[in-house]
Amino acid sequence: MNGQSAPRPRDRRRDQPIPLNRSLPRSRMARLVMKFGGTSVADIPRIRNVAAHVKREVDAGHEVAVVVSAMAGKTNELVAWCREVSPLHDAREYDTVVASGEQVTSGLLAIALQAIGINARSWQGWQLPILTSDAHGAARILDVNGAELVRRFKERREVAVISGFQGIHKETGRITTLGRGGSDTSAVAVAAAIKADRCDIYTDVDGVYTTDPRVVPRARRLEKVAFEEMLELASLGAKVLQVRSVELGMVQGVRIFVRSSFDRPEDIDPHGDPPGTLICNEEEIVEQQVVTGIAFSKDEAQISIRRVQDKPGVAAAIFGPLAEANINVDMIVQNVSADGATTDITFTVPAADYVRAGEVLAKAKPHIGYERLDGATEVAKVSVIGIGMRSHAGVAAQAFKALAERGINIRAISTSEIKFSLLIDEAYTELAVRTLHSLYGLDKA
Amino acid sequence: MNGQSAPRPRDRRRDQPIPLNRSLPRSRMARLVMKFGGTSVADIPRIRNVAAHVKREVDAGHEVAVVVSAMAGKTNELVAWCREVSPLHDAREYDTVVASGEQVTSGLLAIALQAIGINARSWQGWQLPILTSDAHGAARILDVNGAELVRRFKERREVAVISGFQGIHKETGRITTLGRGGSDTSAVAVAAAIKADRCDIYTDVDGVYTTDPRVVPRARRLEKVAFEEMLELASLGAKVLQVRSVELGMVQGVRIFVRSSFDRPEDIDPHGDPPGTLICNEEEIVEQQVVTGIAFSKDEAQISIRRVQDKPGVAAAIFGPLAEANINVDMIVQNVSADGATTDITFTVPAADYVRAGEVLAKAKPHIGYERLDGATEVAKVSVIGIGMRSHAGVAAQAFKALAERGINIRAISTSEIKFSLLIDEAYTELAVRTLHSLYGLDKA
Repeated sequence: MNGQSAPRPRDRRRDQPIPLNRSLPRSRMARLVMKFGGTSVADIPRIRNVAAHVKREVDAGHEVAVVVSAMAGKTNELVAWCREVSPLHDAREYDTVVASGEQVTSGLLAIALQAIGINARSWQGWQLPILTSDAHGAARILDVNGAELVRRFKERREVAVISGFQGIHKETGRITTLGRGGSDTSAVAVAAAIKADRCDIYTDVDGVYTTDPRVVPRARRLEKVAFEEMLELASLGAKVLQVRSVELGMVQGVRIFVRSSFDRPEDIDPHGDPPGTLICNEEEIVEQQVVTGIAFSKDEAQISIRRVQDKPGVAAAIFGPLAEANINVDMIVQNVSADGATTDITFTVPAADYVRAGEVLAKAKPHIGYERLDGATEVAKVSVIGIGMRSHAGVAAQAFKALAERGINIRAISTSEIKFSLLIDEAYTELAVRTLHSLYGLDKA
Repeated sequence: MNGQSAPRPRDRRRDQPIPLNRSLPRSRMARLVMKFGGTSVADIPRIRNVAAHVKREVDAGHEVAVVVSAMAGKTNELVAWCREVSPLHDAREYDTVVASGEQVTSGLLAIALQAIGINARSWQGWQLPILTSDAHGAARILDVNGAELVRRFKERREVAVISGFQGIHKETGRITTLGRGGSDTSAVAVAAAIKADRCDIYTDVDGVYTTDPRVVPRARRLEKVAFEEMLELASLGAKVLQVRSVELGMVQGVRIFVRSSFDRPEDIDPHGDPPGTLICNEEEIVEQQVVTGIAFSKDEAQISIRRVQDKPGVAAAIFGPLAEANINVDMIVQNVSADGATTDITFTVPAADYVRAGEVLAKAKPHIGYERLDGATEVAKVSVIGIGMRSHAGVAAQAFKALAERGINIRAISTSEIKFSLLIDEAYTELAVRTLHSLYGLDKA
C-alpha cells in the first residue's frame, strides 16, 4: 500500500506492550477499521445497529474507518441482471453495475451515523481512491490513499464510511470490483493505509474455531491464530475470511480481529477484551499450541493413474494439461516404482472438476502413456494445522496411529511445514475429525 | 457548456438546409442524443428494446450518446431508504445513494448493446465528467466534457451510455443529483457538449399536444413548438419535459425531439420523419399559428385581499412575506381604487400552499393594513399560448367573448407576450378548454 513494496515499518503504537489479550491499549486513542458484511447491513434497522457499534468506538475516543458490503441479496440481484442481459457480459460494465450495491450502503450508513450525532462521510473506491489492477471482476488492490482519512480523523473527528469490494483502475478510470468476499480485503488494505491498530471483521460467527462446531460440539474458539495458520484454515474451508485478506494482513502486518456482529453494541466494552479471534503474527501468540485446528473438505475427488511410464517429464505431461484446463490439483502422491519401469500417481482435484479432469487425462493418454485411470469421489481431506509442528516431530505419526485404531484407512498423505493432510473415505470424516481434535488436546474442558 | 457563457456558434451541420420536417439530413451521418426514462428501462426486456432503438440509429450511420434514468421504481426505493434512516438526511449522502440507480441502468444498457454487436461503454457523471454546482439534490449543470465522447465516436464508433440525473461537484468531488426529471436536462446538456444534431427524448407519449387529449379528444400532436412556447406549456402542467431542460435547450440551441419509446424499433426509418414533436427555435417553424396550445391547471387557489391601503410599498408588504415562506404567487391583479384610499388585490397560489399563505397574510396583517381576506380553492387557470400573439392583436378579446357566450365567468386575467391566462371556476375547466381549442382552430380535422 501507499506505493511501498518493501514491508512497511511497524507502527509506533503497535510496538508498545499490549496489555490484554486482543484489546487495544486502554490508556489512549486507537485507530480502528470496522468491516460489516451484507447480513449486518441487510435492512435499515441493521444499518442502525452497525451505527451503534461505530458510535461505541467513537465514544471511546477511537478513530474509525468503516468498510461495508452491499445489503444482503443486492449483489446477487445485480449479478442476475447482468447475466440476464447477456451471459457474456463485459466485465467492466458488470463491475459498474455490481459496485452500486456498496455505494448505497455506504451512503445510508453515513446518514445513520449523522443521525446519532457522529460526523461521517461516505467514500467510494474512486473517491479515496482505492487503486486496483484492471482485472475486472477479480481486481487486486495496488494502492489505497489513506492520507485524507487521517487528516479528517484529526481535524474533524470524522468517521470514514468506505464502500468495500470496489476500486478504480488508474489508467482507464473504470470502476473495478475485487470478486466475492472482496470487502474483507478492502478492509485490510484500508487498515494498512491508515496504519490501524486493528481491523475488526464483524461476521455472523464470533471467531475462528479449532474445527467446525457442527461436527465437533467441543470445538473451541481460538483466542489468536497466526496468519500462516489462518491461510491454511481459510483455504481449507473455514469460510470466515477471504484468503486474500489474510495474505494481505500477513504482508502488511495488519492485526485482523474476527468478531460477531450480533453482539449488542451496549454490552461491549470498547477498551475491554471482546470475544473473537485475533489473526496476528506468531510472535504475538505467547502460548503456542502444537496443533491449532483441524480443517476438512468433502469436496474432493481422487484420481489414480495406473502404470505410468516412470521417466522424466511424465509429471509435466500429466499436470500440464490439467493446469491449462484450470483444474486445481492437490495432494500429489507418487509411489515408488516396483518394477522400475512404471509407477502409480495419485492426486486430488475439486469434486466439481472430477469428470472434466478424467476427460483431459483421457485425451492426453497417448502423450502421457499409462495403463488406466482409477478414481473416487466419496473421499474427504482432513488437515491438521499448527505452526508448532515446525519444531515438533512425530505429530503426524500420532494421527496415523489414532486413525488406525479406529479402523480408518488413509488413502493418501501430503505434508507441509505447518500442516499435514490425509485423504480418507468420506464416510469416516466426522469420526476422523473428532478423533484428531481430541488427540491434539483441542476439546474444550 | 464547455465553459462558454456566450451563445455557442451554431453548429455547421445545423446550418445546412433541413430537408424534411423534423428529420435528420438523409445524405450524411448525424449526431444524436437519445434519452430514455425509467419506464423505458424498467426491466431487462425493456432495456433490450432500448438497445434495439439505439442499434437502429447506429446502423443508419449516426453517432449516438444515450442518456438513461434509473429503472422505474428504483429511485423511489432509494429515496425511501434515505428517509427511513433519517428524515433529515445529509443531501450529499442522499445523492450518493440515489445516483446508484442510474449507474445500474447505464451498465446494463452497455451490456445489452454489446450483446447485439454495438460497441458501447457506460459513463457516470464523475467519469465524463458532468460538473455541477454543489446544490445537492437540485444541482445545476455547469459544464459537460464531450471531447472524449466525440473522439470515441470517430475512432471506435463507440456508443456512449451516460447516467442521467447525476454529476460531480468539482471542488468536493462528491456525487450530485439534479432533482426529479433531471435526466432530461442531462440529455440536453450532453447534446450541447457534443454539438448533437438533435436530442431525442423518448417518453410514454408520442409528443406534445395542443392540449390534454383526455380532455379534448380532438387535440392534435404538434409537429414543432418554439422553446418559449414549450416553457409555458411545461410550466403549466404539460409534464412531458423538465422545464430546465427546455431552458437549457433554448440557451444552447439544442433541438429537442419528444417521441414515443413504445414505437417498435423495426418500424422506424432512422432517416425518415418519425412521429413526435420538435422543440426548436421559432425561425425553424415555417407555418406559425397564432395560438399553439391551451394549458390548464386545477391546482390553483385564489386569494383576495380586500380594502388594502392603496399606498406605495403595500405590494412589497404582501408579497415579501409570501416569498420568504417560499410560496409561488401568480396572476396578480390589482383593481383600480374606487375610493382613492383602498383597493382590492387578487392573486393565485398553488392549492397546496393555500392555507399556509392565509396564515402568512394573517400574521402580516398589522404591517400590510387590510380589511379582510377572501379565498377560493375551486378555481382553475386556463392559459392560451402562442408566439404568434406577439404580432396579432385581439387574440384575448376573442376568448373573452367566446367564454362569455358559454356563461363562463372570468375571475382574473394575466397576460404576457406569448400567453394569456384566465382564472375561472374549476367546474368550467373542460368546457373552457374545449371552447378555446375550437376557437383558435386547434381541433384536428
